[in-house]
Amino acid sequence: MRVGVFGASGYVGGELLRLLLRHPKVEVKVATSNTYAGEFIHRVHPNLRGVTNLKFVVSDLKAVVNNCDLLFMATPHGVSSSLVPQILETGIKVIDASADFRLKNPSDYERWYGWKHKSTELLEKAVYGLPEIHREEIRKAQLVAVPGCMAAAGILALAPIIKWGSVEKDRIVADFKVGSSGAGGKPSISTHHSEHYSVVRAYKPVGHRHTAEIEQELSALSGEKVTIAMSAHAVNMVRGILATCHVFVKEPVSIVDLWRLYREFYAGEPFIRFVRDRKGVFRFPDPKVVVGSNYCDIGFEIDDNVNRVVVLSAIDNLMKGVAGTAVQDMNLMCNWDEKEGLHDIGLHPV
Amino acid sequence: MRVGVFGASGYVGGELLRLLLRHPKVEVKVATSNTYAGEFIHRVHPNLRGVTNLKFVVSDLKAVVNNCDLLFMATPHGVSSSLVPQILETGIKVIDASADFRLKNPSDYERWYGWKHKSTELLEKAVYGLPEIHREEIRKAQLVAVPGCMAAAGILALAPIIKWGSVEKDRIVADFKVGSSGAGGKPSISTHHSEHYSVVRAYKPVGHRHTAEIEQELSALSGEKVTIAMSAHAVNMVRGILATCHVFVKEPVSIVDLWRLYREFYAGEPFIRFVRDRKGVFRFPDPKVVVGSNYCDIGFEIDDNVNRVVVLSAIDNLMKGVAGTAVQDMNLMCNWDEKEGLHDIGLHPV
Amino acid sequence: MRVGVFGASGYVGGELLRLLLRHPKVEVKVATSNTYAGEFIHRVHPNLRGVTNLKFVVSDLKAVVNNCDLLFMATPHGVSSSLVPQILETGIKVIDASADFRLKNPSDYERWYGWKHKSTELLEKAVYGLPEIHREEIRKAQLVAVPGCMAAAGILALAPIIKWGSVEKDRIVADFKVGSSGAGGKPSISTHHSEHYSVVRAYKPVGHRHTAEIEQELSALSGEKVTIAMSAHAVNMVRGILATCHVFVKEPVSIVDLWRLYREFYAGEPFIRFVRDRKGVFRFPDPKVVVGSNYCDIGFEIDDNVNRVVVLSAIDNLMKGVAGTAVQDMNLMCNWDEKEGLHDIGLHPV
Amino acid sequence: MRVGVFGASGYVGGELLRLLLRHPKVEVKVATSNTYAGEFIHRVHPNLRGVTNLKFVVSDLKAVVNNCDLLFMATPHGVSSSLVPQILETGIKVIDASADFRLKNPSDYERWYGWKHKSTELLEKAVYGLPEIHREEIRKAQLVAVPGCMAAAGILALAPIIKWGSVEKDRIVADFKVGSSGAGGKPSISTHHSEHYSVVRAYKPVGHRHTAEIEQELSALSGEKVTIAMSAHAVNMVRGILATCHVFVKEPVSIVDLWRLYREFYAGEPFIRFVRDRKGVFRFPDPKVVVGSNYCDIGFEIDDNVNRVVVLSAIDNLMKGVAGTAVQDMNLMCNWDEKEGLHDIGLHPV
Repeated sequence: MRVGVFGASGYVGGELLRLLLRHPKVEVKVATSNTYAGEFIHRVHPNLRGVTNLKFVVSDLKAVVNNCDLLFMATPHGVSSSLVPQILETGIKVIDASADFRLKNPSDYERWYGWKHKSTELLEKAVYGLPEIHREEIRKAQLVAVPGCMAAAGILALAPIIKWGSVEKDRIVADFKVGSSGAGGKPSISTHHSEHYSVVRAYKPVGHRHTAEIEQELSALSGEKVTIAMSAHAVNMVRGILATCHVFVKEPVSIVDLWRLYREFYAGEPFIRFVRDRKGVFRFPDPKVVVGSNYCDIGFEIDDNVNRVVVLSAIDNLMKGVAGTAVQDMNLMCNWDEKEGLHDIGLHPV
Repeated sequence: MRVGVFGASGYVGGELLRLLLRHPKVEVKVATSNTYAGEFIHRVHPNLRGVTNLKFVVSDLKAVVNNCDLLFMATPHGVSSSLVPQILETGIKVIDASADFRLKNPSDYERWYGWKHKSTELLEKAVYGLPEIHREEIRKAQLVAVPGCMAAAGILALAPIIKWGSVEKDRIVADFKVGSSGAGGKPSISTHHSEHYSVVRAYKPVGHRHTAEIEQELSALSGEKVTIAMSAHAVNMVRGILATCHVFVKEPVSIVDLWRLYREFYAGEPFIRFVRDRKGVFRFPDPKVVVGSNYCDIGFEIDDNVNRVVVLSAIDNLMKGVAGTAVQDMNLMCNWDEKEGLHDIGLHPV
Repeated sequence: MRVGVFGASGYVGGELLRLLLRHPKVEVKVATSNTYAGEFIHRVHPNLRGVTNLKFVVSDLKAVVNNCDLLFMATPHGVSSSLVPQILETGIKVIDASADFRLKNPSDYERWYGWKHKSTELLEKAVYGLPEIHREEIRKAQLVAVPGCMAAAGILALAPIIKWGSVEKDRIVADFKVGSSGAGGKPSISTHHSEHYSVVRAYKPVGHRHTAEIEQELSALSGEKVTIAMSAHAVNMVRGILATCHVFVKEPVSIVDLWRLYREFYAGEPFIRFVRDRKGVFRFPDPKVVVGSNYCDIGFEIDDNVNRVVVLSAIDNLMKGVAGTAVQDMNLMCNWDEKEGLHDIGLHPV
Repeated sequence: MRVGVFGASGYVGGELLRLLLRHPKVEVKVATSNTYAGEFIHRVHPNLRGVTNLKFVVSDLKAVVNNCDLLFMATPHGVSSSLVPQILETGIKVIDASADFRLKNPSDYERWYGWKHKSTELLEKAVYGLPEIHREEIRKAQLVAVPGCMAAAGILALAPIIKWGSVEKDRIVADFKVGSSGAGGKPSISTHHSEHYSVVRAYKPVGHRHTAEIEQELSALSGEKVTIAMSAHAVNMVRGILATCHVFVKEPVSIVDLWRLYREFYAGEPFIRFVRDRKGVFRFPDPKVVVGSNYCDIGFEIDDNVNRVVVLSAIDNLMKGVAGTAVQDMNLMCNWDEKEGLHDIGLHPV
């Protein structure tokens, strides 16, 4: 199958290229970047040196559409909502890594993103591309919106316990720790090495946009309004997200109960691993362990002192956080093995 | 004044030496270490090369007592409780950096530390050495227990809002991010560079011992039982703690209200700085900024989505987290300028 | 084919397991570790959780030999020289990751390692397992000695220019920068995170043992004695080696000459990449770019000020530095595709 | 004394402010920054929050000159050479942290910097501000050029052995490892955290401009032409430079000889420390140990294999590498205690 990546010079675009260039079922026909058009891809993504001789081309929608059967959009938020309608008309499948089609309620775009959505009729048609929650819809979709990286980590951590239900749904705290690649490839003072090294920066203690997605998905699962008290911190690593979710329970729950809840919810999932050991250093999920892989590691603990369950999830923000899930979505949309092209396991140590 | 450091080869001991060797009012007479007795101090604390020719000596209590007017205990938890009673009898002042005299309720030692306290009669006499809360008692104390590093960060973040009172006192989440020096100087797999680099390790998602101190101090301030849902994470830095405290409020509160609350509570405090800007990269507290200094930076934000206040505090775990506060305590106990020997400001960048 | 890893709980053993568990032609039958016998492998190598259910077993040579056709030795230096003779008698092929069979001259073991070699008769039979230099001998070998990680980087950087010959062979400086995983998985003060973070530690400014290998191989290539002025530095990363080789040339040489020299020497090599761009950030080899891959990136520059050529090479010390080369050696010994199981490309960013 | 910092929003300017604000003999009257004029200084240098209420002002030369007795220039290369002549006419003393007055030979500016110097008559008048080499001239100077950070490390490492003389003066290799703050505070792709973390980037394998300074100073010391084969690498830390200098000796030299040479050359120097232990982790200079201090740590080792001496020097690039030396120069120019305001010792661990 012929695929293209629109906006391929960013970190998400680069990670998509890394996965797609080795995917046995697809051929990368086009990678667009207006900034780097004409340059070899390895000038921007040095890991791809010797792996491909592809060059970036300008973002010419017509040329892209003629050369691809499926298109990945890795453009800044707000771009794809004006491009996708015309792309879809040509029959091409679209997997959008931006936020433009994640939210169902148009007013949420005004509230959380500050702009009015231009293609609201597509919001209903788009499928929220988290396979563990929407697998069957993804299989049939023409337009899939890849979840936000923190949203993916948060939803996967919380879905089983929210589905169970006996928790205080308006007292859930989700405290995120994120690597610098989550801020993208564009230099700024906040991501300048001298300013970001050793940092624990609460760059978004309240009001993070992914709150909207998490609340949307968990409320749908719950049947009731779920609110999330979300805080995001930048830490000194490149890849990875740890979500620490603090959940107050309304009735006593045991570790055995939690194991059962989580195992049942995620039965058969190829990319969910449970990490909860009684001893050793690697007892709980840690993003360090999943770097480069599509795994979401999940663990939990009970706090008897305060009727709290702590659920932890760890992902590579560029893999399960976006590009890995995007390829998983493609595999589903094309009826291929869901794990195709996603066999990398993490490195130890790294 | 003649001072000594008992257990001086650890990171807390080394930081005490760094501060005390430059303190204009004291002379370091003795630094004990059974492991390194006979070695120059700079073999273990290389920053002190050329600064002192002192050598470590064995931990001989009698010799120490004869040469010192004030003694810092930087021994592992459980050691000082058996030594301090005899030391106090000689009239020497003691500042204990371990946990042995922090808790007032003897049963808390059994619950949180798993051992029975041997000198329970001293628990009442010991003063919890957080100057911002117990300044006047510290001035008169013979035995001061330096707060745990995370406890210091947590209490300083939460004290003003707890004192104000209109918060859900059993739904407070305190999510900590800590540098590797907090684990001490003894090598282990969890602190092995290859295993700790890039890590976000939830090493204590529930059950951290500092919970006991924080609850003790905040309950006393509040007049009601306060519980803390505490989680501790190790991140990829050496020094520093960020406490992210999630507090659900019972009545609406504004940023102006919070400014007033915090300014009043900490009026005149030499080591409390408020960090809450509307723009720029350095809008909120970050441990990176306080490395090497005795500051506790505090900031806050309001989350309208969930009736939450997020309070953030950042300290250098070896400074305000222990050795800096210990010297501040000494200054108070000796009626010296409280800031003496603590004038270092942080480095930028570092 | 049935393979085993002897000494599988270290970082080299873990990396071998990562590669072998996904290698389509082999089945891992046994992984030994006396320390962790009985434990699941993912207790020690957390990246392998969910990938294998294998457990460590004790290092029982007889059991290992009965279950394997090829054995990887990942034991500390000095161990395999006493075990390998008996293993070879059973007809099994051995790939030894330790230093025990790398040097041809028995007296070199006394000089550089400080012990007398017990199986000197095997030193001649063993093949130095650097495919780019000894490919044909490796194909026919029963015993292959995997090069030391820094030796591999140094030899690959220098071989073409040494073969060319017009250089000062007794003035070659090789300045290495190495990640912490090169020190292995055993905790120590020097690799304690607090002591290793931000470090540039000249842990072996002179006298590094890999000097012996580099001199042996380059002298053989040159036909004359080549000496190497080697210095090794630990830096703040986990994986990777950069070799900066400073070579004084006896006659003028141009960049075009160097390109020709290096391209000819490495024509057709699957894991050698040249990195020398005129612009951009990724102009020269950098270990960051090859993490997790088997590539050796090589670049060079000419210094007109001092008649110097600087040759740079970058490898992942656990991959091309040992486990990757070991698997490449296995592929050659078994007449398989040399790249089998080694298709991973690096991550960007990481 | 009234001092000003021209170009105070960069890292050098910030470090000068940190030192000057606590210096007992000076008052900072003005800190210029066209970009941040009107902003509080702590918006850019967050460590100075609560330490000063100074704001940046525009770079108005007249206003500056009227308010200062001594001016620090922390402007980009090429700026001060057109400003300094007019400043000097007012009688003000100038300490220039840029490269504009470091080189004595005007043609060196064309060769190494690519521009023609506009005030060549001042090159002779300016003093190269390395106190260990030019102390007496600095005392009498009106214009001092602060050495380049790598030049300072290189010259201090090599001066004693060059003065001794029996070395191959055209085969000296100086291999530098530098932290990210050396690249300044302006964001770029090469210093973007995701691209700089874990890096060992040979950003200047040949042709580094500081070569000119090192050759100038060492040739003057030697009486013969000395050439330096310099290579510069960026590594994953913020502050610090390690210079690894490889020197081939013409006659045998012992460790005792080297000790004598170095001790004599640096007798009485307040900021030179020797680091060469036989055991332990901290045997050789490491920039980690000098972070925040004005020390230059120097060590050495002999390589019998190749008639080589390795000399190592470590500095904090913002301290002894520029701002610390600048303040040391000021102290000399003003006949104050040379150590005034420079008493900080490093942190351990950090």
